[in-house]
Amino acid sequence: MPVVTIQMWTGRTVEQKRALTRAITDAMVTHADVKPDGLHVIIQEIPKENWARAGVLGIDRKDV
Amino acid sequence: MPVVTIQMWTGRTVEQKRALTRAITDAMVTHADVKPDGLHVIIQEIPKENWARAGVLGIDRKDV
Amino acid sequence: MPVVTIQMWTGRTVEQKRALTRAITDAMVTHADVKPDGLHVIIQEIPKENWARAGVLGIDRKDV
Amino acid sequence: MPVVTIQMWTGRTVEQKRALTRAITDAMVTHADVKPDGLHVIIQEIPKENWARAGVLGIDRKDV
Amino acid sequence: MPVVTIQMWTGRTVEQKRALTRAITDAMVTHADVKPDGLHVIIQEIPKENWARAGVLGIDRKDV
Amino acid sequence: MPVVTIQMWTGRTVEQKRALTRAITDAMVTHADVKPDGLHVIIQEIPKENWARAGVLGIDRKDV
Repeated sequence: MPVVTIQMWTGRTVEQKRALTRAITDAMVTHADVKPDGLHVIIQEIPKENWARAGVLGIDRKDV
Repeated sequence: MPVVTIQMWTGRTVEQKRALTRAITDAMVTHADVKPDGLHVIIQEIPKENWARAGVLGIDRKDV
Repeated sequence: MPVVTIQMWTGRTVEQKRALTRAITDAMVTHADVKPDGLHVIIQEIPKENWARAGVLGIDRKDV
Repeated sequence: MPVVTIQMWTGRTVEQKRALTRAITDAMVTHADVKPDGLHVIIQEIPKENWARAGVLGIDRKDV
Repeated sequence: MPVVTIQMWTGRTVEQKRALTRAITDAMVTHADVKPDGLHVIIQEIPKENWARAGVLGIDRKDV
Repeated sequence: MPVVTIQMWTGRTVEQKRALTRAITDAMVTHADVKPDGLHVIIQEIPKENWARAGVLGIDRKDV
């Protein structure tokens, strides 16, 4: 019954979110020995201008 | 002076949020022995397509 | 089915945690119109030396 | 480069954590189209007395 | 390589976010002895109607 | 009055935490235009065996 919170950039499709949350649920059941009922996977979508890596905002990065 | 973060689906009215945060503040003061000043209650509203329970996205569930 | 995460100092008794989580659950059901099943309330206990308010660590404060 | 935070009860072995974080990393790379470098998976272990479901602390539940 | 998550009201400019995340990154490198690579600073912007202090929603406060 | 949560490995001294939280508070006041009163900085210390980067647990990494 754990809670998994994903922080990532905005922009995934519903189909990606569907596959991602299913795969993470499977990983939790397989490896952490939890029951799926009551297991939450929550996606927090963060705009690129609100996320810095190594001190550089996503909107300012050249490598992504 | 704790911090309470609520993750839930979008869709509550302002009046519901007002009553909810007041009730949670009261619960903290009554049961956790904290002062209300500096006590934060933060609501993070999550779209149904970003929240899976038991591996099923909120937009795909039939029971809610 | 929301998730409520409480960040607060260490030091509450089990009886306080029992009463607190029950009261917060009641507040969620009453005011946010959620079902209790699948509703999680999680307490993250933080040592005083890991929490600063107004730039002052809990272990350095004179007012608490 | 997302951040995945897992809140769950204490008690998994190091080997379970190793397999779990690897599987979640794979799920993120496969389904969310992210690069593994800079992808963090963080496990927050919560004692049973600090986690309530449906208003009942983990230490008071009969079904787990 | 830590993760810093900032919860604050909406409304800062991109220039403020750029300066803020750079300053926090510098603080982490200087005082926590971490490498900037893989260090994430994430801003979660919260509407005033979703944040209560001392039981009063941001939209209801007179002092801000 | 924001809330800043730092997730990082265990192991900093109290003096490092004192300097770090003060510097982050200063950064928030200077760049995000907030008042220090009610501004919380919370450090969540995570054991190396609970944190994976690029799918590798901290205890298994050779580069740190």
